[in-house]
Parts: sequence; C-alpha cells; structure tokens
Amino acid sequence: MMIGPAIELGLPLRILATDPAESAAQVGAAVELGRHDDAQAVRRLAEQTDVLTFDHEHVPAPILEGILDADLAAVRPGPGALLHAQDKLVMRERLSTGGHPCPRWWRAADVSALDAAIAAAGGRAVVKTPRGGYDGHGVRIVTAGDEAADWFADFEELLVEELVDYRRELSAQVARRPGGEAVAYPVVQSVQKDGVCYEVVAPAPDLDADAQSRIQQLALAIAEDLDVTGMLAVELFETADGSVLVNELAMRPHNTGHWSMDGAATGQFEQHLRAVADLPLGPVAPLAPVTVMVNLLGGSRADLAAGVREALAADAGAKVHVYGKSVRPGRKIGHVTLVGTGGESADELLARAHRVERLIIDSPAPEEIA
Amino acid sequence: MMIGPAIELGLPLRILATDPAESAAQVGAAVELGRHDDAQAVRRLAEQTDVLTFDHEHVPAPILEGILDADLAAVRPGPGALLHAQDKLVMRERLSTGGHPCPRWWRAADVSALDAAIAAAGGRAVVKTPRGGYDGHGVRIVTAGDEAADWFADFEELLVEELVDYRRELSAQVARRPGGEAVAYPVVQSVQKDGVCYEVVAPAPDLDADAQSRIQQLALAIAEDLDVTGMLAVELFETADGSVLVNELAMRPHNTGHWSMDGAATGQFEQHLRAVADLPLGPVAPLAPVTVMVNLLGGSRADLAAGVREALAADAGAKVHVYGKSVRPGRKIGHVTLVGTGGESADELLARAHRVERLIIDSPAPEEIA
Repeated sequence: MMIGPAIELGLPLRILATDPAESAAQVGAAVELGRHDDAQAVRRLAEQTDVLTFDHEHVPAPILEGILDADLAAVRPGPGALLHAQDKLVMRERLSTGGHPCPRWWRAADVSALDAAIAAAGGRAVVKTPRGGYDGHGVRIVTAGDEAADWFADFEELLVEELVDYRRELSAQVARRPGGEAVAYPVVQSVQKDGVCYEVVAPAPDLDADAQSRIQQLALAIAEDLDVTGMLAVELFETADGSVLVNELAMRPHNTGHWSMDGAATGQFEQHLRAVADLPLGPVAPLAPVTVMVNLLGGSRADLAAGVREALAADAGAKVHVYGKSVRPGRKIGHVTLVGTGGESADELLARAHRVERLIIDSPAPEEIA
Repeated sequence: MMIGPAIELGLPLRILATDPAESAAQVGAAVELGRHDDAQAVRRLAEQTDVLTFDHEHVPAPILEGILDADLAAVRPGPGALLHAQDKLVMRERLSTGGHPCPRWWRAADVSALDAAIAAAGGRAVVKTPRGGYDGHGVRIVTAGDEAADWFADFEELLVEELVDYRRELSAQVARRPGGEAVAYPVVQSVQKDGVCYEVVAPAPDLDADAQSRIQQLALAIAEDLDVTGMLAVELFETADGSVLVNELAMRPHNTGHWSMDGAATGQFEQHLRAVADLPLGPVAPLAPVTVMVNLLGGSRADLAAGVREALAADAGAKVHVYGKSVRPGRKIGHVTLVGTGGESADELLARAHRVERLIIDSPAPEEIA
C-alpha cells in the first residue's frame, strides 16, 4: 500500500521480499529478494537506497546498526526508536520513566516472580513475551505462573501487566519527520476480536475535544521522547473515568490507520513516506464526519473476485482493498472502508461494512459449491 | 494510474507496453511487451485476459474485431463505440444524426471543398485530420484550403468546423457498464493552453443545477447511443447564451477527470475498471465544494524529486502525482490536485496549484546550475 503513493510522489521504492510471489513483489518491479533477518540481504537493499523503512518491526537492531555504522543509508525509524516497538519490556520501562500512563506492570525472570506479579495484579494478569508477539500471539491471560512457564525456554524475562478494566480501545497515530515536525491524526476507536483488529471508527465517537487533544499530545510526546520517524500508532485503553493507558506501540502504518487511505486528506502510507523521506507532512483532516474500517480476514472463499463483485453489487459505496495475499482462515487479506460523506451514523456505516465483509469472504461462490 | 485501483479491487491486470521502461511497465509485474497496433501482440494479451480495455484510443478496429470474432476476450469499449473517439468524421456524423449539439461542420475531400467550407464557416475555420490528432496535433485554424492541403497526402477527407465563439470549455464524464447502468460525474471547467489541458475546476463554477443536469443528460445519452463501456469524457464548448456544443469525445479516463482521484468518492481510474469489469459503479459525489487540478508539463528540470520536495515544503496540502515518465519539454509528466475541504475558493486553490506546478517543473535544482 506504500507503492502507489511512492510512485505518485516520485520516490523510487525498492522492496525486500522473501518470495517473488509476495503481494508487494507482485506490484513493484524493483524487488530485492531476501529475508528481513538476513544481514546481507538488508545490506544489499540499503546499498541501493537513501532511506530504509519498514512495514513491520522485526528487522533485528544489530543489522540496522551495522547499516548506520557503515553509512549505507538512513534508517527511519532508527534502531534506537524501533527497539520500543520490538521489545515490550524496553517499551514499558521507557514509557514509565517518561511519565506516560501505562497499566501496572512487572518484570518476571522465573515462575515464582510470575506468581508474585500475578498476585500483585490481583490474582489474574496478562503475561506477554517481550518480543515476537503480534495479533494476539505472545499474549496470555493467566492466574498462575505455570501457565506461561514454557515461554522461559525462549525468553529470559516476561512482561506481566494488570488486566485493565477498559471501556474501549483507542488508537492515536502521529507522523514525525527527522527534524521533529509532527502531526497527529484524529484519535480513533478500535475493536479487537481474538486479539486481531476487527473494526475502526474514525474519529472515535463520544470523545470530547479536550480528551482528543490530550491523547494527541500524549502520542506526540511519545514520538518525540523516543525519536520516532515515520508513522507511530499508540494503542490505548480508555478506562471508565475517561483516562487512557498505553497498550502497545507500532512504528509504521498501522491497521487502525487504514481508514485514512479513503477518509483523510493524507493517507497513512503516503504520510509515512513523506515523514521518512523528510518531506513536509500532509494535512490529516478527515474527509467526512465519520469513516469506518473493517478488516477482511480469510474465510472459506479462496478466490475473492466473485466476493468483491457481490459486495459491490450490494453496496457500491464501499471502498474495497484486497491485498493480493493467498487466503488462509483468519489471515488479514484486505479491508473495507466506508466514508460517511452523506452524514450516515457510525452504526449504519459499520453495519454496511460488515455486510460487505461477509459477502467478500464468506459466501461460497457457485463453482465452489459444485 | 489504473494499477493501484486494480490491485485493491482484486482485478489482476496485464499490461501491453512497448518498452520495459514505460511507466506502466515499471510498476506492473504482469507486462506483455508489444505495440498497440501489432495484431499479434494485442492477441497475446487478449488470450490472457477476460476483458481488454485501453488508456488511449489508438488500437486499430480490425485488431479488436479479430479478437471479438475469435472470442478471445471482451473488448470494452467495443470497436464500434471506440470508432467515434478514433475518427472525428464518424463522430460528427453520428452525433449530428443523433441530434446532439455540435459546431457546424463539413466534410472536405479536396482543397476546393476546403475553401467552400471555410467560406461557409465565415472565412475562418478549424480543419482537423479525422484520425491521429491529440493535444492540439492534427488541428489548424485556417483562412484558406491551401493551409491544410498537405494533410490530403495522408487523409482522403478532412473535417472542417466553424470557429466557435465559446465562453469556456466544459467536460462531462460518465461511466457506463455493459448492461447500461451509468453514472455522471459533476461537470467540470477546463482551460486549454496551446491545445493541451492546463487546469480543471470541479465542479464547473457558476453552472446552475439545471445546466449541470442538462449537460450530464447529454453525456449519458451519448454514452447510451454509442454503446460506450467504461469512462466517456465529452468535451464541450459553452457559448455566450449558456448552450453547449460537443467538441471531442474520449473513451477512457481523461485528463479532465484526474481531479476525481483525490476529489471524488470514486476516482475515474477505479470507476473505469469497475465499468469495464462490469462491477457496480461507485459513487461520484465530490469530497469538497471545489477541487482544482493543474497539469505538470515537462520543463527544464529532469529530476523531479527535488521539485516535489520544494513544492510540498511550500504547500503541504497539495496532492502531487508524478508519472515516472522521462521529462521532455511540454510532455505531461504529472498533475497536482488541491481539494478545497477548507472552504477555499477556486481562485485561491488555482493560485496554490500553479505555484506548486512552477516549483516542481521550473526552478532548476542547485546541482543542475553547477
């Protein structure tokens, strides 16, 4: 999704892809084949680029530091910032030191420390692996240390967090240039299902201007403290009293920001490119009072073309984005956006978006039944 | 510009390109190399696709008829429709027969017929080659047949039209599916400079709802009469009394519709794909009270990257689209859109767009001076 904006801004893009069949490789002619954790492959890419950026956070810091030491390319966000999106213990430590609101958390190096933390959290807690987690992987709700003991085979320490009794989840996205210029998108509401982002309403309903501004300032402050360049998503819990706690950080275009591709003056993929290429940032105003985004997760249908056809027949106003990925159950294979330029309510738009979602992924096409 | 929407709609696109360095070939992996007038090359493409469509009108009708006869692919728009965008004499004949308003026109097979037509037109007339013209090529304003006599070497007949004393130029775009479903975009105002589209204001200022609707109905009726599928642009002269005359037809996404990529609910490239793939058409409502588009024509600067940087620094709200084409003076190498979501006037937006234009194409970068 970065390729289109890169072309239009005249920024030649080279992509590191593991396989020529990857969706990015299918549409970008300039592909370097290799893995993101292969130092030589990343180095070959760096030698051909001015700026290295990411669509995930899993490139090991030593590889990126090697590229900076050899002065091969700028790395944005840099490894020092990226670390806070790679390692949840580092993130919690740093946010707490910086005075940013977090759930209560503990560091546990063995099962007895886990038990102590769980007790301190009130008998039930969230245990997380510091690294490698995504979309619900590496996260467990436990009542005893035993239930996460297996993770010590791979990690010296685990992160324990209190279970937050939250009213809803919010996400605050900002974009920041190397020199510090930054903009904050409207804060959005996200709903997770089985640990995966399921739907987003932008801007978040029933969030008054003060709260919105306070949360935007929090996200901007985190971006500044951590020296983030590019897009930063701060995922938040909103509690019953309206205060917020930081849940996770992502330093790249993020699922909770897909709405901006159709619903904001500057989409997050264009904005990320502008930020990491050190171009002036674009305006972030929403194009409608409300925009909703619903993820498409792989279902029973392998060929999406018939689904898209049915979905558009049912709702021609839906903006459908499929990613050209092979379909596996539960895999994120696209998203649907509905921009409420006609003054529709968020609930109306969500109902329409979910109908479109079901039509694209669920109903088997006639030839699949036969 | 069709590639991005095709990916997102899940429509695999194969492109016929003459050269692997062509801008479309740079970004689309699935390229068939060959010329648009090479029957074998077009046939090879047709064998791999369900639907053949175009980003220009120059594929010879016999090639397309051969593809239909062999039942290799659907052709949208079909050769019967496309002929009216390929041959201006056929177009004039058909529009006149259909009762659609045209400038007065004559068919001339020799210089004396040219002279007679020029005299009938009032001593000065526009002479056009029936085929092969674009962006001012193949069009001359003459006062004597001699001035276009050379064209008889290549064409049996020429088209002569009265010089219309027009107030301004308008463009009406519609999209039409094979079954006849059609939508009309807001009518826009376009300004030409040396025969090339220079700037567009959407919707056209000072066009009342009645006039707008009448012009949209005209464009829809032409699409229906000619059985156009895909996007149709009807370029029009608006005369002093507010009536309109058809100037040209284009059966593809058109320069006067680029504003819709940023300024309408469905951009014209997505809409064209939806129409030719026989998918339901998207909504065409503008996203702001006014959107302007200005073309980027090649200037003294070869490397546009520095220009884009300067331009965005001067106006972060500009939507810049560069096409990855090599720069030649006067060549269309991109466009700039400004969407007036902040309630700006068309004049303000145009002034900003032209400033951005000058910064991108004109000012030499420091390394070019050195």
